[in-house]
Amino acid sequence: MSTTYSKNDLASWERRYRANLLNKISGFKSAHLIGTQNEEGQTNLAIFNSVMHIGANPFYLGFILRPHSVERHTYENIKASGFYTLNAITSAIHQQAHQTSAKYERSQSEFAEVGLTEEFLTNFPAPFVKESPIKMGLSFVEEHPIKVNDTLLVIGQVEQLILPNEIIDSDGDIDLAQLDIVSILGLDSYYKTKRIGKYPYARP
Amino acid sequence: MSTTYSKNDLASWERRYRANLLNKISGFKSAHLIGTQNEEGQTNLAIFNSVMHIGANPFYLGFILRPHSVERHTYENIKASGFYTLNAITSAIHQQAHQTSAKYERSQSEFAEVGLTEEFLTNFPAPFVKESPIKMGLSFVEEHPIKVNDTLLVIGQVEQLILPNEIIDSDGDIDLAQLDIVSILGLDSYYKTKRIGKYPYARP
Repeated sequence: MSTTYSKNDLASWERRYRANLLNKISGFKSAHLIGTQNEEGQTNLAIFNSVMHIGANPFYLGFILRPHSVERHTYENIKASGFYTLNAITSAIHQQAHQTSAKYERSQSEFAEVGLTEEFLTNFPAPFVKESPIKMGLSFVEEHPIKVNDTLLVIGQVEQLILPNEIIDSDGDIDLAQLDIVSILGLDSYYKTKRIGKYPYARP
Repeated sequence: MSTTYSKNDLASWERRYRANLLNKISGFKSAHLIGTQNEEGQTNLAIFNSVMHIGANPFYLGFILRPHSVERHTYENIKASGFYTLNAITSAIHQQAHQTSAKYERSQSEFAEVGLTEEFLTNFPAPFVKESPIKMGLSFVEEHPIKVNDTLLVIGQVEQLILPNEIIDSDGDIDLAQLDIVSILGLDSYYKTKRIGKYPYARP
């Protein structure tokens, strides 16, 4: 049995009930850890569920920053240094990844607090997550303040892509379920996945 | 064994190989059908893998439009009418949903071409997909042209939310795997999901 809710109904819901439901109702999202460091070399690691594909050539990715959140350390470091990393989350590290959302002090590195290993590779000026099988190093290129609610779209270009090449098919296909990459629903629920179909370019 | 690719390596890859791999490497995404109609009442239905959460109160969602693609019918209809629908994709309809990405003529409705049922509900001025268990009616509120590659972020407010309320827990939690909602990887691969964990708000 389906029910129709108006925007006024949504506004009248209890705050936590609304946040739980509406963060999930738009579906499964990718889960990434963003690694940054400040000018003193203090590292930061934060989980994001909003990484989006902007373009493949050049390769651009975006993500959404909420206003006034713990994620602000990430933003400040990106703006100051110009660089950040995106690290895919596997089932093996998803609990540690979730724990990065706690409000640690600026002097604490989430790497050490949650038990993940920071790794500096190929002279890239931001920390990667050693335990992640897909690592990307990005440079900041563009930001768009969202007028309606003060969130921010941040876009970067992928400068370095690190991945296990033996799982890439000859046509570039890759099945992330084989790497145990998880999907996230809302802010608290993690999912494993299984491919049910792959289809050719559709024609009328 | 991991390999590091620079942005120059990515640029040198064959076009289709690059598109396949890089559309997938950023992880699992939500899959939606966007329903619109033009001023003559001609309906359109198109699959999108870029729906993102912008905010819960008020409830805003965004999506990315590629330049010069078949998705332009969707955009023209949204701009002309101000309204569109987002419909979640289940495993039962994922093949029909994929087929909407074919380049149909403007005079053809993808609803009829792929065998999905258009439904007009609660006087909302855009067509819903009858077969979808989660339907949202949105009004256009904001757009942001992405400078680096001419894609476009489109943001709407959810005016109507239609869903089976018996699957919502008392705290607003919902497990979309129970509704057989699929996740999508890249442009061609569909996944079912299974929850592996749900965690409380993290504290240091």
